[in-house]
Amino acid sequence: MINSTRLQQHIETLGQIGENTVTKGMNRFSFTTEEQQANDVIARFMQEAGMTVTVDAVGNVIGTYGSGEETIMMGSHIDTVPEGGKYDGALGVLSAIEVVHTMAEQQVTPPYKIEVVAFKDEEGTRFGFGLLGSRAMAGLLEEQDLQAPDDDGITIAQAMVDAGFVTDTLASAVRTDIKAYVELHIEQGKVLENADLPVGVVTGIAAPLWLDVKVIGVSEHAGATPMDLRCDALTASSEMILAIEKLAQKFGIVATVGKLQVKPNGVNVIPGQVDFTIDMRDIDEEDVAQAEQQLYEVLQKIAEKRGVQCDTQLLQRVKPAKCDELLIQQVSAAIEAQHLKVHTLPSGAGHDAMNMANVAPIVMIFVRSKGGISHNPLEYSSPEDIAIATQVLYDTIQKIAQ
Amino acid sequence: MINSTRLQQHIETLGQIGENTVTKGMNRFSFTTEEQQANDVIARFMQEAGMTVTVDAVGNVIGTYGSGEETIMMGSHIDTVPEGGKYDGALGVLSAIEVVHTMAEQQVTPPYKIEVVAFKDEEGTRFGFGLLGSRAMAGLLEEQDLQAPDDDGITIAQAMVDAGFVTDTLASAVRTDIKAYVELHIEQGKVLENADLPVGVVTGIAAPLWLDVKVIGVSEHAGATPMDLRCDALTASSEMILAIEKLAQKFGIVATVGKLQVKPNGVNVIPGQVDFTIDMRDIDEEDVAQAEQQLYEVLQKIAEKRGVQCDTQLLQRVKPAKCDELLIQQVSAAIEAQHLKVHTLPSGAGHDAMNMANVAPIVMIFVRSKGGISHNPLEYSSPEDIAIATQVLYDTIQKIAQ
Repeated sequence: MINSTRLQQHIETLGQIGENTVTKGMNRFSFTTEEQQANDVIARFMQEAGMTVTVDAVGNVIGTYGSGEETIMMGSHIDTVPEGGKYDGALGVLSAIEVVHTMAEQQVTPPYKIEVVAFKDEEGTRFGFGLLGSRAMAGLLEEQDLQAPDDDGITIAQAMVDAGFVTDTLASAVRTDIKAYVELHIEQGKVLENADLPVGVVTGIAAPLWLDVKVIGVSEHAGATPMDLRCDALTASSEMILAIEKLAQKFGIVATVGKLQVKPNGVNVIPGQVDFTIDMRDIDEEDVAQAEQQLYEVLQKIAEKRGVQCDTQLLQRVKPAKCDELLIQQVSAAIEAQHLKVHTLPSGAGHDAMNMANVAPIVMIFVRSKGGISHNPLEYSSPEDIAIATQVLYDTIQKIAQ
Repeated sequence: MINSTRLQQHIETLGQIGENTVTKGMNRFSFTTEEQQANDVIARFMQEAGMTVTVDAVGNVIGTYGSGEETIMMGSHIDTVPEGGKYDGALGVLSAIEVVHTMAEQQVTPPYKIEVVAFKDEEGTRFGFGLLGSRAMAGLLEEQDLQAPDDDGITIAQAMVDAGFVTDTLASAVRTDIKAYVELHIEQGKVLENADLPVGVVTGIAAPLWLDVKVIGVSEHAGATPMDLRCDALTASSEMILAIEKLAQKFGIVATVGKLQVKPNGVNVIPGQVDFTIDMRDIDEEDVAQAEQQLYEVLQKIAEKRGVQCDTQLLQRVKPAKCDELLIQQVSAAIEAQHLKVHTLPSGAGHDAMNMANVAPIVMIFVRSKGGISHNPLEYSSPEDIAIATQVLYDTIQKIAQ
């Protein structure tokens, strides 16, 4: 059994680093003093757990236990969004350390190298460019990516040099020896809470398709233009937004219109233009592609009917990552061993695991988030849920290592 | 017959005062040099038409022809919105002067006093408080209204004193002798253009009911929240906007959601709050009242179904003004005399006639607007349409005076 008390102490200790004592928000950003302090604490926990600690070329902190040609890797990140919570990322690193600590105490020596990684800069808070460490490890980091500047104009490359790194050794961070990558993370949603379960197994990581839509009608006097003579960009957009919602339900994906602007935006002026964004995602690329195709037809049909013009533009299209079937089965068996119903769910948010899927089979374990709240000091998962999830992680690693 | 050439010359002459020579936009605001120049030109045209000119206590320029106990009044305004057009307001004053000029030439002497008024500050551009002259004439102007400041902090009261007016004589501007008030105005909409007619008779002036609506849902991660667990304020608002459109169609009124704001307005964030306005109008107060009542029910039903909160707040409720039945008949007969189909339509925009309805029977004659464009240098009505409408105004005044 893993040691829940020790794990909670580690969560508290790490949770004091970068904490805003007024708001209780966490602030640990890439290549800052707070991040270095957090890395030092993590390194100490790793050593106490029986691991040797190294830092790779991009700044990922890696604890190694045992030996073998192939590596079973666990991990997540310890950086945060501005005013973030104590669990997002941190829990994945600390639970992985706890798993190794327990293995060491029980003198379990698997035939594989077991590694725990605290990835560099997952959130992208400082440079607006996230998943830095996992990109580097998966061989996805390009030279030009390091030119992203922070608010003071300092680039990632400069920050790395200032911190004593040598950017031309980045290739050494790439890994090809990983047998499995397992990431435990808080859900950041309400699916598990709704299902009344402490833990779930992730089927894949949905990546967003982002579109920009411009609906152009005719701006006229709200009093002087009868209903049947209008080309109202907002009523047209409203019909589109509801159609997008229906499409998402039809294809079992999620779709969101999150950003919308009305022009000229006057009380007594019929909207002449509405600009809005669409975020569509699923772990099944094919479902998103089919929904996208129907989307264009549906938008055009509504535009035609309402006498407005509708232009769509692609903002970004990221490939989703599927979790490995065998690893999903192994996590599921570990959940069943806790006498719990196995709940599978996709991850709607991005994670380091998404990049690791390029170099290894991956799986993720989600822990119930209270109220689905995340990126907020109110972020919370109970000690009981965390203990169960960490035990599931422990059992999963045992199964993989057998 | 009225003199179309003279009328077009007057339109061109007045259209040079306050003109932005680059954009061709008109800029004549309350108590400015440009407005005074325009008033001087109007006074000259009135004198040339055989009228005596006076200026009342609020600055309305009044031309008087003939005599009698009761007054038949025509008029409109000569101030403009910023970068406005040549016809909005100005055409009503100039066509009225042309009617009197023709009467004088034809030595028509009706048993009533005929007056033409150029109302002070209809648009409210400078002080954000419009219809100043007609409010004063209808006894609707209150002392506190004169405290409205312009961008430099100068109040209406101060501007009046600076222009040589004495504000405590305002009561002298109130009129109780008006037998009929007839206002010719450009339509500022596309109804007549759509009906392929140069002129129409107005049944009443719709006044707006303005509401503010706050829809409060739950702002969550667009990726991590399944469709069936969302309380999306924007999909709820979209359904409301389409329901408002349906209600307008059902009750034969106009309703517009012109202003809308999404919070927090992020591509990957489910909208947590949407604020929007509703503008509903008709000349039939009862229709608006019924639509309003159903509106609250419909909004609450949608809010309940979608798990969001919906709060509505009244911003303003202005009473519509109906045109006088007998005057509508007289205008209609004048239109038929031109061998034209009589087209009745409501005025969706506010006019000085709306205030005059408090002290006199009113009617308005609308002239076709090209493309419905107004408050814009592209505002245009053809000389042919203007000639027909002015002849209709002439014939209407003859009928009233009989």
